[in-house]
Amino acid sequence: MQIIKKYCIIKIGDIMNYPNKTKTTFNKLTTYANRGMDLENILNITNEYYLENDIAVIYKKPTPIGIVKTSIDRKKITNAYFKCKSTLDYNGLYKGKYLDFDAKETKSKTSFPINNIHEHQLLHMYNVIKHGGISFLIIYINNNFYLLTGECIKSYLKSNNKKSIDYNYIKENGYIINLKANKVLDYLPIIDQIIVKEN
Amino acid sequence: MQIIKKYCIIKIGDIMNYPNKTKTTFNKLTTYANRGMDLENILNITNEYYLENDIAVIYKKPTPIGIVKTSIDRKKITNAYFKCKSTLDYNGLYKGKYLDFDAKETKSKTSFPINNIHEHQLLHMYNVIKHGGISFLIIYINNNFYLLTGECIKSYLKSNNKKSIDYNYIKENGYIINLKANKVLDYLPIIDQIIVKEN
Repeated sequence: MQIIKKYCIIKIGDIMNYPNKTKTTFNKLTTYANRGMDLENILNITNEYYLENDIAVIYKKPTPIGIVKTSIDRKKITNAYFKCKSTLDYNGLYKGKYLDFDAKETKSKTSFPINNIHEHQLLHMYNVIKHGGISFLIIYINNNFYLLTGECIKSYLKSNNKKSIDYNYIKENGYIINLKANKVLDYLPIIDQIIVKEN
Repeated sequence: MQIIKKYCIIKIGDIMNYPNKTKTTFNKLTTYANRGMDLENILNITNEYYLENDIAVIYKKPTPIGIVKTSIDRKKITNAYFKCKSTLDYNGLYKGKYLDFDAKETKSKTSFPINNIHEHQLLHMYNVIKHGGISFLIIYINNNFYLLTGECIKSYLKSNNKKSIDYNYIKENGYIINLKANKVLDYLPIIDQIIVKEN
């Protein structure tokens, strides 16, 4: 059996899901109108709302784990490690369209650091676009949620050899997403606009 | 911290992935022309082939795991459990179309047992179809790979109150998939046929 050689450091708040649907988050974004909710939680509520109301079928992909050892009855995992993600966190289906996206936050007020996204994740975004899907990032910056399309990100990185995307660019090219009272971060009306633009 | 309450038994062959890309499978299907490969392995090779040749962007979703405890440095998972799957194993994008499917095998020569698919996985298939995606099963039975669409499965289960799908129905309504010499189980030409039929 191989010894683990490669680790992937993941924020513990991303993966600490406890059995009975309660969740401990170590990365609360209290700035979300002091709701104390993290972005993942908000998107889970949103996607559940979309599913329950028959609007879209969108899920968060499970965190990829490499399993080294289980208990004899195979019920418990006793040794495992985090694998690096090669795709984005969320994908699904809306009005016949394939969606593939990630949600990121930054405390910076002036830019979104690109090292938030791995190189292979960027390639995955470009692949999705090439094959006719819609790929984007949801970015929480300066107390606002923005949807920035993969095309915009690609275009920015092509002409700007930067380590981050300027906030001004996000403001000008991104779409502000409305966080509704029911804690739904309603990004699908923006996808509607993108679909209309495409046609 | 909660004690684990619910387990989900998963074939160990499905999840035992070791770090350096070698894989130990406990569920070899030697009947695949005695290649000793399992269905998951074949589909991984196939989807990699599609990705590398810029044909489609299709991935296996990671096995959902609930993490209870990690090492202090967060590099190692020391206590976790398998969560039940609510969706299918594979999804992705081909020619602008959303695909969502699972691959199953049966040793039975006369029928495919429905208990191979959970009720909520069936509902997920129907949801995908409703929202304009293509959902299907790849079934290995009687030394052949068949692609059976979610529509066919739904139609069968509606008119047959059975615990399994008759092999004759699969033979008549499914599409035989060609396992090529390069170990690619070439299911996308069948998706082409399905897309043509839809239009």
